[in-house]
Amino acid sequence: MYLEKLKEAQKKNNSWVCIGLDPQPDKLPIQATHLWDEPVLPFNKAIIDATADIACAFKPNLGFYLQWGAAGIIALERTVQYIPKHIPIIIDCKAGDIGHTQMAWAKGLFDQWGADAFVINPYVGRDAIEPIIKQWPDKGVYVLGRTSNPSAPDFQGDMDNPDDLSRKVITKVNDLRQPDHGAVGLVIGATWPEEMQMAREEAPHAPFLIPGIGAQGGSLETSVKYGADSVAGPLISSSRGIIYAGNGYDFADKARAAAIELRDKINALR
Amino acid sequence: MYLEKLKEAQKKNNSWVCIGLDPQPDKLPIQATHLWDEPVLPFNKAIIDATADIACAFKPNLGFYLQWGAAGIIALERTVQYIPKHIPIIIDCKAGDIGHTQMAWAKGLFDQWGADAFVINPYVGRDAIEPIIKQWPDKGVYVLGRTSNPSAPDFQGDMDNPDDLSRKVITKVNDLRQPDHGAVGLVIGATWPEEMQMAREEAPHAPFLIPGIGAQGGSLETSVKYGADSVAGPLISSSRGIIYAGNGYDFADKARAAAIELRDKINALR
Repeated sequence: MYLEKLKEAQKKNNSWVCIGLDPQPDKLPIQATHLWDEPVLPFNKAIIDATADIACAFKPNLGFYLQWGAAGIIALERTVQYIPKHIPIIIDCKAGDIGHTQMAWAKGLFDQWGADAFVINPYVGRDAIEPIIKQWPDKGVYVLGRTSNPSAPDFQGDMDNPDDLSRKVITKVNDLRQPDHGAVGLVIGATWPEEMQMAREEAPHAPFLIPGIGAQGGSLETSVKYGADSVAGPLISSSRGIIYAGNGYDFADKARAAAIELRDKINALR
Repeated sequence: MYLEKLKEAQKKNNSWVCIGLDPQPDKLPIQATHLWDEPVLPFNKAIIDATADIACAFKPNLGFYLQWGAAGIIALERTVQYIPKHIPIIIDCKAGDIGHTQMAWAKGLFDQWGADAFVINPYVGRDAIEPIIKQWPDKGVYVLGRTSNPSAPDFQGDMDNPDDLSRKVITKVNDLRQPDHGAVGLVIGATWPEEMQMAREEAPHAPFLIPGIGAQGGSLETSVKYGADSVAGPLISSSRGIIYAGNGYDFADKARAAAIELRDKINALR
């Protein structure tokens, strides 16, 4: 079961840190970009080697790989294979399609790629969620609830109205939870502390994937206070703050130091 | 400009038919699956050869390629290269990320892959749309407005309330339209005729991408009546109904016949 695997990984490394593996051409350290003609895979391997005993999960974001063309996806496939088997892999693709198309996403990510969980965009309704958690009871999904970005309220609304989109999604995710189904969690941005508290109240058992700390300025205190579910701790996600902590030959050491620092900050609040 | 390119392609082939290139392992015709060890690219090439003078656009859906692993994405990259340059390519990926991540999607799909347009999921708000249409004035995006699936009302609501999600998105898309920006259109399912009429009234100039005819039972009459924008006709999309019209050695001929039939049905209503 996905949440048990996550719980074990969190326990083993005493960590709630989820590291986003997001290769950006303009940010890769000089060592990766100048010395290797295909920098994505060796960069990721160096980050994984340096942080596999610090992170509780790795989260590659599909968009950053597609931007390299098919070569990026080959690097992603090999990155997923390289991650130690006991560490959960969450593919951040925000897949939100319907019917047999959404099932193709799930078949690909779970059965072909070997992901443990992936991120779902719920715009199309429960059709994007329910068939997947029924068919893959050992896996997990994280549904966008409250995104961390400034324009989140455009369509997601705010906390005041139960008809607001974020609240409807959070309620629906809570309703979809079944003991014999896959885990269904929520993405809740750390930049919206009140919404996070509400989300935890509305969905007391939902696993949380929490972006928005670090560069986006979200609250670590709130993330720790409301992040844990009934089985495991949250995934508190950091990408740039860790993987681009350095841009010289010591980038992997810098990444390790940044991951340790974040892990310790979180643990001091637990 | 994207809409001018689409208009020319529609005029050249006298067609509003957009063909979805969605390779499904269990549906590929025997000729493709038994004779070719990597069936996706040769299947797509045969469909493109048979329909390039009938379709006004091709629309590969990313999920169907990812399910084959990196090999599927290589086939997608080569498929995109194979499509004649005068025919618009829309990548149906329903990308809905934020900030630099959404920009990575756009950079990849436009600059690396050579797509003319792609589909955006607006859950995160205008952050997923506005920076892209500003940066790529020659390209287009289609924003999910009203999806064609049964659970669309779960979060999208219905027509009665101006606060309903679909209406808010349609209004926002209309507001985002600028003459010096990229084209910003809407995905409006043919299975929701009233919503399509409303969408056209709210966004009189927005290009429409219309799924849901064929297997899903959407209305072709409504799609033709409300589909056209101020520059071009709509993309009336069909995937399974065309590419899997046959499953024997004559699959490409059957696909061609199905594409001609749909084109002629649409043209009879224009």
